[in-house]
Amino acid sequence: MYLETIKEVNDIKKIDPKDYPALAQEIRDFLIQKISVTGGHLGSNLGAVELTMALHLALDLPQDKIIWDVGHQAYTHKILTGRKDGFDALRQYHGMSGFPKRKESCCDCFDTGHSSTSISAGLGLVMARDHRGEKQTIVSVIGDGSLTGGMAYEALNNASKLETNFIVVLNDNNMSISENVGGVNKYLNNIRTADGYLDLKEGIYNALLGSAKGNQVIRGIRRLKSSLKTLVIPGMFFEDMGITYLGPVDGHDVQAMVDVIHAAQRVEGPVLIHAITKKGKGFLPAEKHPARFHGTEPFDVETGKLLHPKTEPCYTDVFSSVICSLAEKHPSLVAVTAAMPDGTGLKRFRTQFPDRFFDVGIAEEHAVTFAAGLAAGGMKPVVAVYSSFLQRAYDQILHDVCLQNLPVVFAIDRAGLVGSDGETHQGIFDLTYLSGIPNMHLCAPKNKWELADMLQFAAEFDGPIAIRYPRGIAYSGLEEHREPIVLGKSEWICREGGVAIFAVGSMVEEAVKVRELLKEQGISSSLINVRFVKPIDEEALLDAAKDHSLIVTLEENVACGGFGEKILEAANAHGLKNQILPIALPDAYVEHGKVEILKEQLGLDPKGICRRILEALGK
Amino acid sequence: MYLETIKEVNDIKKIDPKDYPALAQEIRDFLIQKISVTGGHLGSNLGAVELTMALHLALDLPQDKIIWDVGHQAYTHKILTGRKDGFDALRQYHGMSGFPKRKESCCDCFDTGHSSTSISAGLGLVMARDHRGEKQTIVSVIGDGSLTGGMAYEALNNASKLETNFIVVLNDNNMSISENVGGVNKYLNNIRTADGYLDLKEGIYNALLGSAKGNQVIRGIRRLKSSLKTLVIPGMFFEDMGITYLGPVDGHDVQAMVDVIHAAQRVEGPVLIHAITKKGKGFLPAEKHPARFHGTEPFDVETGKLLHPKTEPCYTDVFSSVICSLAEKHPSLVAVTAAMPDGTGLKRFRTQFPDRFFDVGIAEEHAVTFAAGLAAGGMKPVVAVYSSFLQRAYDQILHDVCLQNLPVVFAIDRAGLVGSDGETHQGIFDLTYLSGIPNMHLCAPKNKWELADMLQFAAEFDGPIAIRYPRGIAYSGLEEHREPIVLGKSEWICREGGVAIFAVGSMVEEAVKVRELLKEQGISSSLINVRFVKPIDEEALLDAAKDHSLIVTLEENVACGGFGEKILEAANAHGLKNQILPIALPDAYVEHGKVEILKEQLGLDPKGICRRILEALGK
Repeated sequence: MYLETIKEVNDIKKIDPKDYPALAQEIRDFLIQKISVTGGHLGSNLGAVELTMALHLALDLPQDKIIWDVGHQAYTHKILTGRKDGFDALRQYHGMSGFPKRKESCCDCFDTGHSSTSISAGLGLVMARDHRGEKQTIVSVIGDGSLTGGMAYEALNNASKLETNFIVVLNDNNMSISENVGGVNKYLNNIRTADGYLDLKEGIYNALLGSAKGNQVIRGIRRLKSSLKTLVIPGMFFEDMGITYLGPVDGHDVQAMVDVIHAAQRVEGPVLIHAITKKGKGFLPAEKHPARFHGTEPFDVETGKLLHPKTEPCYTDVFSSVICSLAEKHPSLVAVTAAMPDGTGLKRFRTQFPDRFFDVGIAEEHAVTFAAGLAAGGMKPVVAVYSSFLQRAYDQILHDVCLQNLPVVFAIDRAGLVGSDGETHQGIFDLTYLSGIPNMHLCAPKNKWELADMLQFAAEFDGPIAIRYPRGIAYSGLEEHREPIVLGKSEWICREGGVAIFAVGSMVEEAVKVRELLKEQGISSSLINVRFVKPIDEEALLDAAKDHSLIVTLEENVACGGFGEKILEAANAHGLKNQILPIALPDAYVEHGKVEILKEQLGLDPKGICRRILEALGK
Repeated sequence: MYLETIKEVNDIKKIDPKDYPALAQEIRDFLIQKISVTGGHLGSNLGAVELTMALHLALDLPQDKIIWDVGHQAYTHKILTGRKDGFDALRQYHGMSGFPKRKESCCDCFDTGHSSTSISAGLGLVMARDHRGEKQTIVSVIGDGSLTGGMAYEALNNASKLETNFIVVLNDNNMSISENVGGVNKYLNNIRTADGYLDLKEGIYNALLGSAKGNQVIRGIRRLKSSLKTLVIPGMFFEDMGITYLGPVDGHDVQAMVDVIHAAQRVEGPVLIHAITKKGKGFLPAEKHPARFHGTEPFDVETGKLLHPKTEPCYTDVFSSVICSLAEKHPSLVAVTAAMPDGTGLKRFRTQFPDRFFDVGIAEEHAVTFAAGLAAGGMKPVVAVYSSFLQRAYDQILHDVCLQNLPVVFAIDRAGLVGSDGETHQGIFDLTYLSGIPNMHLCAPKNKWELADMLQFAAEFDGPIAIRYPRGIAYSGLEEHREPIVLGKSEWICREGGVAIFAVGSMVEEAVKVRELLKEQGISSSLINVRFVKPIDEEALLDAAKDHSLIVTLEENVACGGFGEKILEAANAHGLKNQILPIALPDAYVEHGKVEILKEQLGLDPKGICRRILEALGK
């Protein structure tokens, strides 16, 4: 009933402070109920309810700005800015995004989706504000997981120079998507454990008293302390960088958070508020299994169980099991993930081969160069990563792996359209950015058996190789087609002349359906499973050119720099005169929505493809 | 004369310790003399002479491994591993590289060129070593400048978990390529200033004594101190991360460095040795002007003056002056560089508009997302950056700038072949990786006036736009061709039918020469200055198709995903039947050497292009 009164931004300010806990509870219930129906990010949002309320209470939106790192914790922010009704169509086509979007609300000031960008973006907004001579408060909210990403540190390093106000709220739940890793986590943990730091505090005070700067810091700390209920500790590293450290503060105590934000606003310079929260707070299954409820499909609120549990394995499951069998055969095989042991399917590998498993945190750049180092040292690293996150490591692939021709395997999950996470997560650029890199080899399996075969091929291959496969159920058709994988060789699925369809990976399944539709129209066609996008199979192209008037290419990647262009180049180089129809994704970002709907909208579904082939044939 | 005795790796161990200073002096003289003839990285190498000697003395190469961050400080390492004679052909075609190369020596264990990769790579080598159950010492040598790059921090964060030995030598000269920036520099500075930390030390000792872990740390420190001549201070942040901090130590004191390395080898876990050095040490002009002598052309040893000073402006100079005039007209225009105010030509802007200039350190990822934040805040940021370094920010361009269609200008210098820096620095991928990104606009000027016009166009353009231009003297031909810049429109330079040459940016100059060669053969040709690689000018293509039998595309970029493929795609979409000859760089890394030689080798010089056109015409 408090929730009902919140119709637009700043309505929360009308709520009586004594009712904050009740409102928080309502928001939690609302989130659990809605997400249980639509699916979405649960744990991160439940953990940020009070923190978001406090920001809305302390700030003056939309003049003040909040940048949400990753953005998967912004649901409460959406509720408090009048988008409550949007939750019925959350993450659905043309419905509300699961991430902040400037086009959705004037209170969303910067789009996010990938990790660790918020401090950089916030600092940009701060400098723009200062340039205009204005005084708005600008707050970047970043999780401790995102703080393992290097660019957050690059940004902190730069923020430290500021002489005007900028607030970073560290939403510290001691978790990345899975458990958090590394030295910074250890550092934060030392702070988290009050005992540890209380012991240290007096001594450090004494230490600080020894210098003029130290005295100044202490005066600042004491001044703040008197106006705050929060604890203020030195947070030496941040302080030494020039960033005022406030905390740790209970991120679930609205009033304490409001107070600390107000205190932070008074600092002339960068401030880090260290808020301690609990991921999944208020929903027991999510508190217990934070990784499982980080992002979830629709579930039963009582039990936490998925409403539609998978009955068939997805590609991730296939990878998960195959990589373990390969590890048994290949003692030098090791696996690397950037904070995604669950998402990438490496959890089982971690259990079976703990010494050969590396979770580096949200740090794709390091992951790839680390893998290059492993390979230079004689190991066979498999980097399991989502397509859109691997974008982060483009230079490391080019400069550290491929330049030295090192045998690193990239197992690229979520390649192609991913659906409800939308624009920032679509894996539709990898064929372009990877195939432009010398020495790279690039393949995509048509079905689950081929993923297994390609992984085996890659495990024995002496050079950089990437296997890209989509999100979702692994195709189990065409079981009978299982020719051995040969570098740069495609596979003829059937040959009937007429139209030759060269389909990449996931598009083979669609092509099978396209062929049926074409048959209904009396048009015969052949199907070639491309397998390798780099190097491409020029022989197969020349072969197909002999007895097919039309050559069609199908790929779940943007056209620019994709497989179709490679075929056009080869056809041109060989002087082929056949008509060529490259079908790919348009030069545009693709919003959220079910993959089937997106494919239909983009003409990449069997009917749409068939229609374009008929057009090309003049029918 | 000591230098003469060093013919292969470990020969340095035969030198009497009392003669280390003399050897260091000989190495310095050698480096100054050789680099004054060939050009190369001077300051960074002069600063690392003793540090390198110490590593070679303390370690057992090639079993032990040294990873040189960036690699521009590895000349002494090359000398000490028997490559002294290579310096006569340093950075020349087929000569010795200016960077570590695994193919050059078994003592080069990992290729570098870009910044901040060494700790990641080192950690990979460490894990591989541990997997084999071996005990070699692995050392990453990283500058304080490289430490501003986020992936170094990602790597440190991961290194902190180690329970086996790994040594990071922080070569701290208080410089990036230019002055160093940011909070970490401040942090290191606090440590560097002995007074400051000595004041703190006792207090911190007391503080540490208050906890069990603290006592342990102090015991460790005391144990090490007794065996070391160096100072050992807590380096709280590193220590709190779990990294043993040793230093600061004088990086020019060979014996002190040897001692600290030996001490570090005894630590079971990650160790950071903080060595203080002076960039350019021993050569006064380089000590005084470290940025100018970071990388230098041939110079006079007596005066430090360049032997062949530029008489004509290069593109960087044009950018430098134009960006200042534009800033006068556009008050919202701001400039961002990642540690390259000199290299990118922003030095003058910094002087004229200090409040609108941002040097973010070696942090391209942050630079781009920071620029996105500035743009979201209403500013007009110009990110001036080298093509190969912008690779680092591929995801940030895609995810932060272009997704939100923000008006960020990328002024991409060193696009195309760069010459003597070689493989890691060739800017030959940007057309591919940038044009695959939705909402991006991409252009390249034919000459110096067009760079000015394009910058002006970009300053007024409302969306992401990149202008790419090459290293070296700006072309001043075709002055009379100065049609206004129109988005997506190319410029006809001349139209004579026959062969239509579509040339991108720097290739227009070559195309002018190609036309002359063709004319000598009695072949008429037209020349189209492409201007925009994205969006391409389909109209011009259709127009040219009418009266040209052969269409040639010329670009200084890899073929894959480049301009030629875009023309092929458009031609295919429009059903054009003209013969098309895309000329671009091959799918390969391009080694160091003079640009003219490289172009000749790759068939991208006028003669080579002409030859390929004649072939295509069947002549």
